Amino acid sequence: MIRLHGYWRSTAAWRVRLALAAKGLAYDSVAVNLLDNEQRGQGHLALNLQGLVPVLEHDGVVLTQSLAIIEYLDELFPDPPLLPADPANRARARAAALIVAAEVHPLGNLRVQRWLRSEMGQDDAAVSGWLHHWMADGLAALEAMAQQFGGRCLIGDDISIADLALVPQLYNARRFNLSLTRYPRLLDCEAMVAKQPWAGITRPEVQAGSV
Amino acid sequence: MIRLHGYWRSTAAWRVRLALAAKGLAYDSVAVNLLDNEQRGQGHLALNLQGLVPVLEHDGVVLTQSLAIIEYLDELFPDPPLLPADPANRARARAAALIVAAEVHPLGNLRVQRWLRSEMGQDDAAVSGWLHHWMADGLAALEAMAQQFGGRCLIGDDISIADLALVPQLYNARRFNLSLTRYPRLLDCEAMVAKQPWAGITRPEVQAGSV
Repeated sequence: MIRLHGYWRSTAAWRVRLALAAKGLAYDSVAVNLLDNEQRGQGHLALNLQGLVPVLEHDGVVLTQSLAIIEYLDELFPDPPLLPADPANRARARAAALIVAAEVHPLGNLRVQRWLRSEMGQDDAAVSGWLHHWMADGLAALEAMAQQFGGRCLIGDDISIADLALVPQLYNARRFNLSLTRYPRLLDCEAMVAKQPWAGITRPEVQAGSV
Repeated sequence: MIRLHGYWRSTAAWRVRLALAAKGLAYDSVAVNLLDNEQRGQGHLALNLQGLVPVLEHDGVVLTQSLAIIEYLDELFPDPPLLPADPANRARARAAALIVAAEVHPLGNLRVQRWLRSEMGQDDAAVSGWLHHWMADGLAALEAMAQQFGGRCLIGDDISIADLALVPQLYNARRFNLSLTRYPRLLDCEAMVAKQPWAGITRPEVQAGSV
């Protein structure tokens, strides 16, 4: 039994939905409403002390951190693989995913935006400038990687963990009105994922709790 | 040939030094002085467009992102392994490393501190409060993981990627005067790494360029 605790607009939860869908794995969804602070409730904190989503339950094992969850799924359900076969390209795909997960996303997370506003007195324009700065920095690095190492996908010709991290980040960039015209290769990768028959059900707007 | 581009006080570079040392791999060091903005120089940007360290060169392959580099080294040089054998514990070790690399570290990075000061007008006290908040959040989660899943190390009895991420983060916490008394299990894990014969040469103060 697989159960995913997520939030419809969480980009990290979307990465895991993409991995589950790519591998054709059925799962139950639990919607955790971050705007209502449900992630700070006792039920969710018992699963993840940090109060973050996603959390994946699999046969009694409780796992956190989207990239670790995707690697776990890839080890247990290797078809189709979400990492390239070549060691260097595996490292590049992981690095691309980490540019999203460890450089861009942590700085734009809801809890960070809240801190900038409440503790540091920053207004909408300042928060927007912050978000755009870190997103543009990361996306430029990813575009360069796609130009150098990409084929039909971000690294090589097959959808990998890199594309799974990219797609939600591009959605998030649009949500915060960042122009994406400087990242043509990344838009190609996004389109490659979008045309997969399994991709539609992973989109934020079709998740429970979306508004 | 292995060459590591790092900075003596970069916690991300230290993670990779620990992996190289644990596996007994010889390498050349290139010191990139972040305070002098050498990471923005053409030479380093050609290796990493984001201007971040570490960068690892291995037989012509150029790799970025510390956790991706460690996974690469672990795949090519599997002895000793830096991931547990059991899939659930592998995921937990990766998740613990990601708590450091994707939750704590990105928010305390030098470039982020600079932005908070220069673009958002924050003073030392505000930046310190920010750093302490995110470090305490991540370390509490790691302490809970160590209590639940740790043995002599953070996950299980063997040194893993989780401990390699933890040790530099604890050093960084002390540097910014965060009390560590609430994390006794993490201090045990740190001591376990420190007593390894290969650990001493990885410490920041013995790297080229340290002041």
